[in-house]
Amino acid sequence: MKTPLIQRLAILGPGLLGGSIGLAARQRRVAKRIVVWGRRAEAAHEAVTRGAAHEVARTPADAVRNADLIVLCMTVEAMPAVARALRPGLKRGALVTDVGSTKRSVVRRVGAVLGGKAAWIGSHPMAGGERVGLRAAHANLFADAMCFVTPLSDSSAAAVAKLIAFWEALGGRVTALSPARHDAVAALISHVPHLTAAALVNLVGRREPAALGGVGNGFRDMTRIAAGAPEMWAGIAKTNRKEIRRGIGLLIEELRTLERTVAHASWRELHALLRRAKEIRDGLRPRRRSSGE
Amino acid sequence: MKTPLIQRLAILGPGLLGGSIGLAARQRRVAKRIVVWGRRAEAAHEAVTRGAAHEVARTPADAVRNADLIVLCMTVEAMPAVARALRPGLKRGALVTDVGSTKRSVVRRVGAVLGGKAAWIGSHPMAGGERVGLRAAHANLFADAMCFVTPLSDSSAAAVAKLIAFWEALGGRVTALSPARHDAVAALISHVPHLTAAALVNLVGRREPAALGGVGNGFRDMTRIAAGAPEMWAGIAKTNRKEIRRGIGLLIEELRTLERTVAHASWRELHALLRRAKEIRDGLRPRRRSSGE
Repeated sequence: MKTPLIQRLAILGPGLLGGSIGLAARQRRVAKRIVVWGRRAEAAHEAVTRGAAHEVARTPADAVRNADLIVLCMTVEAMPAVARALRPGLKRGALVTDVGSTKRSVVRRVGAVLGGKAAWIGSHPMAGGERVGLRAAHANLFADAMCFVTPLSDSSAAAVAKLIAFWEALGGRVTALSPARHDAVAALISHVPHLTAAALVNLVGRREPAALGGVGNGFRDMTRIAAGAPEMWAGIAKTNRKEIRRGIGLLIEELRTLERTVAHASWRELHALLRRAKEIRDGLRPRRRSSGE
Repeated sequence: MKTPLIQRLAILGPGLLGGSIGLAARQRRVAKRIVVWGRRAEAAHEAVTRGAAHEVARTPADAVRNADLIVLCMTVEAMPAVARALRPGLKRGALVTDVGSTKRSVVRRVGAVLGGKAAWIGSHPMAGGERVGLRAAHANLFADAMCFVTPLSDSSAAAVAKLIAFWEALGGRVTALSPARHDAVAALISHVPHLTAAALVNLVGRREPAALGGVGNGFRDMTRIAAGAPEMWAGIAKTNRKEIRRGIGLLIEELRTLERTVAHASWRELHALLRRAKEIRDGLRPRRRSSGE
């Protein structure tokens, strides 16, 4: 049997992502031993019951003791406090990462807390959804999912390589980019689309509430992500304000361009814009089976 | 055996909707005899082969001869010309309807062509999708789908009742409203969402083309309808300009409201907006199994 990539994996926060990391790491034999800590002790014990971890730790510091990889799986806003709590337990040479949806702010804040005591490189597996919690966790959540890793210029090459190998071992496709670039990309492909889904739902709810009973699958699919946890998305907005504001502005420009073609009856231009959108959309990779409704 | 609702049903345009009407009407014994006409003769013959109709007519006028219900299933822009061509064949007491996604313009234009020679009431079954053509047709396309019917104040009550019974017999849920109200509703729940999906896809394609390979299921689902036929959507935009422009303006207002909460760090307000969107979205009827990806 090959040696596992990780000897001791610490998962802090056994929700959808943390639980799925544990299940995937076990099923794929990526980690020899998995320890879990959760703010609610019951959730951590439930993770063990479900096979997402071998043992429960009572504190973050206990969880990371002797761990070579530590993954923070709570909201980005809660991460600095958990980093402070785990710091005393860190072993030399440990690698800390996370699964937060924004990176610039959290990489800076957690980095300041850890202060070089361990290698710290942010991650963002694009595998969440509107479902949350351990009950939705499964071992294939990361299969074929894009996993961003966001090293800094002074990150250790060995640590970056280990982190990339970890996400690839869970089934992900990895792209490395800076925290700032990540936040610009994620604003356009994830954060602004989510806010737009919320805007569409609220618009219909405000103006045509009776029509909500008649919406088709198109509207349903388009607004599915608006069912995501408001707390999480508010946290994302807090930690990626600049890029989200920029992205909303850019989307409004695109909408104004479409509106202008309708206003001026520029049908050839409208057709070209719709044709371009169709070509791009048709070129996307197939839907991953492993998550979503 | 009960008497079928329709003695002779004429389907003009055997695409996704026309083909599905034929398949559903036959399977559910809604029509005794179904005749189909298509601009391309092969498509009409294919409809018979697939069981969506009993016979092919060579011209629109031949198709509607002796038909008590005629359904126009081409793009809204092509409908007036087809109405002109079928007019000579109309029998007294016939009822003509359509499946177009916009109603005010087409109801007026086709009405002017038919000139009272038959009852003419617009319909809009919300059962399309990004897939088109007879190959995607199936007998359950209208199951639990909202079907709008748009009578005018001078429409015959008997014709309205027959049309409602027809869509209900195919499995649909029917709402009757004026063509103008329909277009306002459809702009918000269908037309503007489609253009928004196209805007999102084009925005990412323009600004972050490399990120297209990394988008998650959320982005995929949200932009699925952008894969719809550009010709059809350009036709919809042409015939619902006022309401689409208004709807884009309203959506931009919603987006600006969200942007403002991020700009001003009004997290409580942002949270309330996201919570409201989640509640509305959670309250939508379940996805219909019968269509979509």
